Amino acid sequence: MHKSRLVALGIDCEGGDLEAAVGFWSAALGRPSKGIEGEYAGLEDRAGQPHVFVQRVTHPSRVHLDIESDDVEAEVVRLEALGAKRLVKVHTWWVMEAPTGHRFCVVRPQRGPLGEDANVWE
Amino acid sequence: MHKSRLVALGIDCEGGDLEAAVGFWSAALGRPSKGIEGEYAGLEDRAGQPHVFVQRVTHPSRVHLDIESDDVEAEVVRLEALGAKRLVKVHTWWVMEAPTGHRFCVVRPQRGPLGEDANVWE
Repeated sequence: MHKSRLVALGIDCEGGDLEAAVGFWSAALGRPSKGIEGEYAGLEDRAGQPHVFVQRVTHPSRVHLDIESDDVEAEVVRLEALGAKRLVKVHTWWVMEAPTGHRFCVVRPQRGPLGEDANVWE
Repeated sequence: MHKSRLVALGIDCEGGDLEAAVGFWSAALGRPSKGIEGEYAGLEDRAGQPHVFVQRVTHPSRVHLDIESDDVEAEVVRLEALGAKRLVKVHTWWVMEAPTGHRFCVVRPQRGPLGEDANVWE
């Protein structure tokens, strides 16, 4: 048995001015930046909304979903059975590609143990 | 004064099998489909998560954000001042492009009046 849940939106920006990108998305969504660290900036959390972060990347710009799980490997295997593919493991998370072509990540729990609102997979 | 809020994620799929696309994302996120209507399928809501919908489109696949507002025009003007551009008006909503190149929509309120958790812009 493991759990998973949609946890975050990553706003990937190909190159460019990261401070300006963070400024735009922070103002657009009304969520102050928690500060830029390297190529990454998290925005402040908001009730009823997933985490949002902005990062500078070297691939084409996109929005990607992060799914958190208390068992990353089991969740990746579950998603593979649904037709997704593993692309690359980065530190503790897997970048995957959906059968629809969208890239997304499977990550470790981002805010403590997954609660009652998580999906439970037997 | 107007209000706005991140309300939804659209998973835009270029062509292909919409039923299969909905099946994947429904299973990946643990959110049953509310049924396909034309080129569109909403997934069931989940506490603490935005709406998610899957649609078949003729442009390249992407994930896009929807921002709801009780005054779409005022919100579009606010976002233009931040550097976003109007691309096209579709029915009641505007498709915009962020200065980071990401496309997103400004839509009317999707679940009744915007509450305490919305951004308020003077």
